[in-house]
Order: sequence, then C-alpha cells, then structure tokens
Amino acid sequence: MGLEAQLQQAVLLKKVADAMKDLCKDVNFDCSEKGLSVQSMDSSHVALVSLLLRESAFAEFKCDRPVSLGMNIDSLVKILKMTGPSDSLKIRHQSDSDVVNFQCEGSDDRIADFDLKLMQIESEHMEIPEQHYKVVAKMPSSEFQKICRDLKEFGETLQMSASKEGLKFTVQGDLGSGNVVLKPREADKPEDKVALTVHEPVTATFALRYLVNFSKAAPLCGSVELGLGPDAPLLVKYDLDSSDKGHLQFYLAPKIDE
Amino acid sequence: MGLEAQLQQAVLLKKVADAMKDLCKDVNFDCSEKGLSVQSMDSSHVALVSLLLRESAFAEFKCDRPVSLGMNIDSLVKILKMTGPSDSLKIRHQSDSDVVNFQCEGSDDRIADFDLKLMQIESEHMEIPEQHYKVVAKMPSSEFQKICRDLKEFGETLQMSASKEGLKFTVQGDLGSGNVVLKPREADKPEDKVALTVHEPVTATFALRYLVNFSKAAPLCGSVELGLGPDAPLLVKYDLDSSDKGHLQFYLAPKIDE
Amino acid sequence: MGLEAQLQQAVLLKKVADAMKDLCKDVNFDCSEKGLSVQSMDSSHVALVSLLLRESAFAEFKCDRPVSLGMNIDSLVKILKMTGPSDSLKIRHQSDSDVVNFQCEGSDDRIADFDLKLMQIESEHMEIPEQHYKVVAKMPSSEFQKICRDLKEFGETLQMSASKEGLKFTVQGDLGSGNVVLKPREADKPEDKVALTVHEPVTATFALRYLVNFSKAAPLCGSVELGLGPDAPLLVKYDLDSSDKGHLQFYLAPKIDE
Repeated sequence: MGLEAQLQQAVLLKKVADAMKDLCKDVNFDCSEKGLSVQSMDSSHVALVSLLLRESAFAEFKCDRPVSLGMNIDSLVKILKMTGPSDSLKIRHQSDSDVVNFQCEGSDDRIADFDLKLMQIESEHMEIPEQHYKVVAKMPSSEFQKICRDLKEFGETLQMSASKEGLKFTVQGDLGSGNVVLKPREADKPEDKVALTVHEPVTATFALRYLVNFSKAAPLCGSVELGLGPDAPLLVKYDLDSSDKGHLQFYLAPKIDE
Repeated sequence: MGLEAQLQQAVLLKKVADAMKDLCKDVNFDCSEKGLSVQSMDSSHVALVSLLLRESAFAEFKCDRPVSLGMNIDSLVKILKMTGPSDSLKIRHQSDSDVVNFQCEGSDDRIADFDLKLMQIESEHMEIPEQHYKVVAKMPSSEFQKICRDLKEFGETLQMSASKEGLKFTVQGDLGSGNVVLKPREADKPEDKVALTVHEPVTATFALRYLVNFSKAAPLCGSVELGLGPDAPLLVKYDLDSSDKGHLQFYLAPKIDE
Repeated sequence: MGLEAQLQQAVLLKKVADAMKDLCKDVNFDCSEKGLSVQSMDSSHVALVSLLLRESAFAEFKCDRPVSLGMNIDSLVKILKMTGPSDSLKIRHQSDSDVVNFQCEGSDDRIADFDLKLMQIESEHMEIPEQHYKVVAKMPSSEFQKICRDLKEFGETLQMSASKEGLKFTVQGDLGSGNVVLKPREADKPEDKVALTVHEPVTATFALRYLVNFSKAAPLCGSVELGLGPDAPLLVKYDLDSSDKGHLQFYLAPKIDE
C-alpha cells in the first residue's frame, strides 16, 4: 500500500493550504505513521513554515513507510476548492506512484476526486531548536490580523514590545507613527482572551509583510500564540482546532537595528 | 400600436440578460403574439443561445404584428440594473419607432424609464431540430455551476459520461486529472434532486469555458436540465421560474476526439 | 494646551473621511471653540466640500485658540480604519506641535493611537452665501445614490427638473435617454420619505461624476437634502446623525446650456 488518510473535515486541510499559499510555492508533505508534516522556507527564504497534522487529527490513518509527497500549494488550493463545507476528505498514495489522490465526499452523494501529479522537491530539512521564549502572548487571531493589516498601511517594520503591562505594536512611517497596545484581559470565550507570560521584557522588530501573511491563518484557530525572545526568531503559532490535532507555525527572524 | 408587455417581476428579464451577457453581444428580440424570443450564436459562433419568454409569462401582453428589436445586451443589462428587487417592468415599442421603452415601477412611487435606441442586426434564423436525447439529467443549477467552475481550474475540456449509475464529469490537465460523480438522488426540495433518464449511455467532451458561461444562468432556476446524445450538441436548459413561462437554452457542439 | 476633543463614536469621523476622500486630497481642519470645520474645493476645483462638526457632537471638546490642522484625507482614512465599530476617538493637538494625535479605544482594552504629521496647506477661505433655494428636496440617501450610479452608466450630464408633482432626473447618452421620477411620499421611517418644497419650478443640469461622489456620503445619514435654484449651485447636504451635530455639504455649479 502506502498512505491512506481520511479527514472528517476537508475544510481543515483547505484552511491550512490557504494559510500557506502566500508564503510557499512547492513543498514536501512528509508522511509517516505520526501524521503529515511540512517544513519549508518561504519563497524569499526569510520565514519558516512548519505544519504538523498529527495522526490523531484523522478519522483513519495508515502509512506503511515514510514518504515525501511534493506538491504545489496553489494546485492543492485548487483541488480543495472542490470540497463542500461539510465534505470529508480521503488522501491516498500508493507506494511508488507518481500521483496522490484526493477524494472528497459530501452528504449529498456527490464525489469529487483528483489525481495530483507529484513533484520532486529538494528537501531541506531544518532542525528547529526548541525555544524557551521570554515572552509568550495569546490573543484572538482576528485581532492579530487586524493589527498587522492596519499598521501595514503606515510602514514596513513592526516593533513589538512586551512587558507585564501589555504588548505594544509600533510602526513608524512617512505619515507619522502609530501604536496598538493590548493589555491582558479575561473573556467569556477562551479565544477572546489576551494572556501574557513575561519572564523578561522583550522588544524586537520584524518585517510587517511576513506578519500580514502569517496572520492570514486566522481561520484555522480563534486564537494565536506569539513567542518572543531577545535575538530569537518570532514564533507565530496556530493550533489546528485543538492542539492535539497539530499546528501551523511560522518563524521569522528579527530585524537587527542598524 | 406595436408591442406593449408588462412583467410582474422585472428581475426575471434582468436575470435573463445577465445570463446572456457573457455569450452574446447584439441580439434580436423577436416579438410576436406568442411572446418574446431570441436565437443567437455566441460571439465566437460556437454556442447557440435560445430564449423563449412566453406571452403567459407577462401580466399583460399585446403585440399587433411580429417585430424584431435589435438590442445590445450590455445596454439592456445597464437599463435593468435600474430596477429594484420588486419592481414591475413595462416594455413598449411603437410600430416603426427606432427606440424601445423600458419602464420600471416600484412600490415606492419611484418610476424609472429608458428609451433604448434599437439596432439593425442581421438576423440569422436557425432551425433547432427537436432532439431526442439519449440522456436527460436534472440537477441543482448551483451544483452544475460549481462543478464547471471547479474543473475549469484544471483543464479546458470536460468529458461527461452518463449511465444509469450516475453522471461523471472528468477533466485532464497539466496538474493531473479530476472527476466529479453525481448519483441520482431524492431530496425534499425538487430543485435539490438529481435525476437521470438514460436510454443509452453517452460519453462526450465539451469546451469548459462555454459551460462555465452557461452555468451563470443559475439564478434563473434552481435546477438545470442537460440533454446528451452521441455526436449531438449538448443542451443546457433553464426554465424561467416555471416551464410554462418559457426557458433559456444553450446548445454546444461536442469536441470530436482526435 | 491646544485641542482636545473626544468623539463617542469614532465611526462618525470615519464616515466623514470616507465621504470626502474621492473629492479632496489635502484639507485644513479648522478648529475653534465652535468645533471642527473644513471648507475645500475638490481636487479639480469644480465642487465645494463643507464640513461642520459642532462642538456639541463631541463628548468632550476643548480648543484654547483657533488652529488649522492640515491633513491628507487618505492618511486620515487609513488611521480611522484602525478603529473598531464601537470605538471612541480622542483627537489631540498641542499648540505649535507638528503632529495631531488620534487615539481610539474599544471596549476590549485595545488602544490604538497614531501621531499624524501635519501639513501646511494654503487656506482658501470661501464665503458661502446663504442661499434661499427655490426648491428643497429630501429623499432617502441610498435612493439618491442609486439614481446617480444608475444614470451614470448612460451619460455624463444629469438634468434635474423639480416641480410640485415631483423631481425628475434625466440623462441623455449614446444608448438613448433615461428618466427617474420621484414623487413626494410619506413613509413610516422619516428617512424613507420624499418631501419637496417648491417655491418655483427649477430645471438645471450637473456633471454626474460629482454627484456620484457626493452620494457616497450616504452612510452618514439616512436622508439627503438637495437645494436647487435657477443659476445657483446645487446643494447636497447630509446631516451628521442629527442636524445639531453638524453636517457635510457639497456645492456644485450648474452646467450652462450651450
């Protein structure tokens, strides 16, 4: 055999592909008995995208032996556009076949399937060292997206300053300078909360256009987690529904002040 | 006099014009005591568009003697954009006048009218031979539109294969090959049903971009009827609300396999 | 000090800026103890835009001495895009400072602020003579917008004819000629009413593209007031919620018949 995996909700992979498509072009989906994973630099080799879709995220999952399936993300997006909102999805790959088959099935007896030709993609496996972030911030993913989009209008570089009082986003540009300050807050819905764990205050600056692209993953999860450290890459992490299904993570190196 | 016709719902003609505008440029509306009809090749002379708006579709209908009113579809679309969602529409043409008048009236005492200059369009009357299709399929018009749009992403040619088991849409392209299979199904709402009448299995291929344009007529009717025969043009038929008001039909010659 | 003003609803200024942005580029916000006002010719020096935001429109308003704050409208639009739908807004300017600060605050402890660099804009103060219009018409602002947009499709010049029977909008173009007639009408909601005060019938013609731009102010107020006189500029007036908060007015010179 090879790989046979069934997602109850095709829309989960659809959101993942949508979130990756502005950053990555061709990527390897590494399949093993643990699930599917992707590690890829973005096209400009500045940011790192890391997907983990655990075996437990699937209704059924069989993978005889590890295999890397090279796909173009835009093609994957096109295929997953065929799915209806409540379709399930089967992903099948026979050992040594040069296609991977996606089959989506709705409640209405409509079956759509696609044989996608696989690509040979040079694999560049990167070890992501486990980081102990000085600051970990959780906030609503829609709010993070709005902040990135709004501030993108005014400049190209975003400064983040985190302390126990709050998380401050600052942009400087030709028109002037702007700030958004988020303070820790409780909320009825967990995803509306803003939570800050600060071992040490951190200030760092990042290229805004990557952050805008990362923040497009908002449909994946109601909240987003940021990890900050001095001179460390920024972590932007979205759980897939619940963290035990996996996650989509982005890493971005800070800009060094001249 | 000449022509005087009143539609209870201006939106019906609006949807018809919207459905024709990506296929036809200038067409003759042939008016007779039986109603309004259009027969026109599409701009590239590959597909045929056939509209019948029966006299019974109108709240009032008078037509003294047959007349052909040549109009540009884009102009008609602009005029009908003036109508509100619940407006009624009067169409008037005085014999020998070079304008046709459209008057829409809402419930709110707002009256909009437009005198559209008529065009001389060479009429190319085509006899459409009554076909006895080997396969007649009915399905939700929105589903047909989604299938055409989705598969258009992968290739230019669509193969349809109909048998008693179901109707299969297949596309082959650079990325791979895809299929959508619809099986006959019952549904609470008649327009959600998929029904197949198969006298003989048929397989034929068609240019997808025409099908995508035909399928834009979906707002006209909840369901669409496809007629297929070996070596016969494909029929794509939308009733206007109910079939006794008339219909909008598209015909497309199959692609011959090389 | 200088200026310190707080709006309960940031969205009010947001709508004002949105309504001005297709007409004006750089304008002076004249601040005095009476409130904020703008008077500016549009970029092509044909239409006049006049904003009055009365001191009473603000929850708090302090202005020590009159000052003109020159701003680019597009920049203001970008800043106000940062506001959430129920945010409040503080506008602050310290005497002799070259920035004006906008601070918006939501119910969720999110604070966004922006220091906008001020511009030196040559002030061209215009005296707008108090007019006694022969015709004053009130109508739903959305209806005025639809009429302007619909008729814009057919020509560049709009004729308005007002009499006690109604207000007629006429356009002539290559495709033909169109009219929309509004008659006085009562309605349950005051903003759905059409009311005409006619001292003397008036007919005048105006460039449609300005009217289309004026009509974009529709979100400001459910109804719009038109003032017409023979050979007088057309007045198009939107109250800011209620007339005691202020208004946004547009003036447009009539086209002289050749």
